[in-house]
Amino acid sequence: MNKVFVTLALILTGLILFSFQSTNFNDDDELSIDSLRKVYSKPTEQWPKPTVDKGAVFQELGELPPSPVDLKNDSVKNVVELGKILFFDPRLSGSNQISCSSCHAPDLHWSDGRQVSVGHDHLTNIRNAPSLENVWFYKRLFWDGRAASLEEQAESPVAAHNEMHQDMKALPKKLNKIKGYQPFFTAAFGSKTITNKRIFESLATFQRSIVSRRTPFDRFLARDKKALTDQQIVGLHLFRTKARCINCHNGPLFTDNEFHNDGLTYFKRKYEDLGLYNVTKKPE
Amino acid sequence: MNKVFVTLALILTGLILFSFQSTNFNDDDELSIDSLRKVYSKPTEQWPKPTVDKGAVFQELGELPPSPVDLKNDSVKNVVELGKILFFDPRLSGSNQISCSSCHAPDLHWSDGRQVSVGHDHLTNIRNAPSLENVWFYKRLFWDGRAASLEEQAESPVAAHNEMHQDMKALPKKLNKIKGYQPFFTAAFGSKTITNKRIFESLATFQRSIVSRRTPFDRFLARDKKALTDQQIVGLHLFRTKARCINCHNGPLFTDNEFHNDGLTYFKRKYEDLGLYNVTKKPE
Repeated sequence: MNKVFVTLALILTGLILFSFQSTNFNDDDELSIDSLRKVYSKPTEQWPKPTVDKGAVFQELGELPPSPVDLKNDSVKNVVELGKILFFDPRLSGSNQISCSSCHAPDLHWSDGRQVSVGHDHLTNIRNAPSLENVWFYKRLFWDGRAASLEEQAESPVAAHNEMHQDMKALPKKLNKIKGYQPFFTAAFGSKTITNKRIFESLATFQRSIVSRRTPFDRFLARDKKALTDQQIVGLHLFRTKARCINCHNGPLFTDNEFHNDGLTYFKRKYEDLGLYNVTKKPE
Repeated sequence: MNKVFVTLALILTGLILFSFQSTNFNDDDELSIDSLRKVYSKPTEQWPKPTVDKGAVFQELGELPPSPVDLKNDSVKNVVELGKILFFDPRLSGSNQISCSSCHAPDLHWSDGRQVSVGHDHLTNIRNAPSLENVWFYKRLFWDGRAASLEEQAESPVAAHNEMHQDMKALPKKLNKIKGYQPFFTAAFGSKTITNKRIFESLATFQRSIVSRRTPFDRFLARDKKALTDQQIVGLHLFRTKARCINCHNGPLFTDNEFHNDGLTYFKRKYEDLGLYNVTKKPE
């Protein structure tokens, strides 16, 4: 007798859950592609209310802000130009064969397309090379967020034994022997003196000038209403509402610029990577 | 008066041409996606007649033949294994930092995704790195077909000043100093002697073992009739008939394995590349 009750209760619960789900789905479904296109063609402030969880910091999607690097300012431009030359110069590496651009290639969206990057003596890295597009935006650098500025970040791969493997103490002297650099350091910093601080300041400033190309979504936001297909508009709505992607992937760069524990740590398995935890040692 | 006649004649010609085109288009159009899917689900011998120009050498599309490298044969397998180690070893380059795999990376379909490859001292090449998938099939190697075998081909990038920049005379001695290679040369060739001939024979044999992964089209040919979408089946029919792609892109590898003068030489312009002409000096 008990068994029958339990079975009936289970079936009933299932039916109730299913009916709720079904109702929910139909609610969303009612929005036709025509009505969706109409509402998403309006300014972002008039878009449908996003589905945001309690506590999530929300900013609406929107047009990309420009890079803060003012290339019309000659003194900034000189620093960027020096940084660009350094970025593509393999002599910043111990072997004189690997440059920043080896793993951050402009024609591969300033990354390298590899599963993990291959560095000095073909040693591999444990994480892949991040793109540098719009990198000026990020508050913390490296996948584990261990650097607080691009200046701080840039030194690590140059020195790392499995990346560029350059003796940092020897670097200024080494570049000092290359006569061609002198006018560029003078233009950027007022004197031909080469220091690691100047090297990484110019590398960081150059990287802040790297921005992404316009995407169909950028054109859509700029009132080109044909830039997105029907399927893409349905996806945009799903992204902002039912699928709840927008909770973290929001704002003009589709990120809240924060770190979240999403559980994908491979804890105690082959590819374990505890990320930010290894930096802060805070379980959060 | 003359002008009127000429104008009328032009309009008439236009109308006639247009009506022919229109008829032609409707002929193709009659094939519904259902009838196309039905006929393309049959064995390739029963597919619709392809549109092949006079003189074109035609072979029907079909399942990929296997690599001729027999990995079940131990003596072949030993050569492949040595070739694989050499392929990924940067010590085959003058700087000890660049290997074949630097530009032919397995996770980028055995190419590098770059517009042109970057070699020794960051010198650039004039053409991009071709994929090595199914490379055993090709009769002539390099984009300009200047090598007749993989053995002949493999030496060039190792020696080229803008690729691996290795002194070829010094290479066997250099590898001879690496004790770890001896058992592999012995297993592959019966003695530990290292010669350039053995190096490039094993590199070539390894490369002949590199094959592409199965694509939806491969699965479609193997009777998985859901592997292609409606749009893809329409494209397949267009490819084989009206668009005449099949004239050159035919057979199991979508190529007739020949060179054709398609006029894209950039003659006397910045990116001029006369390809095979520079090799044969035959205007054809």
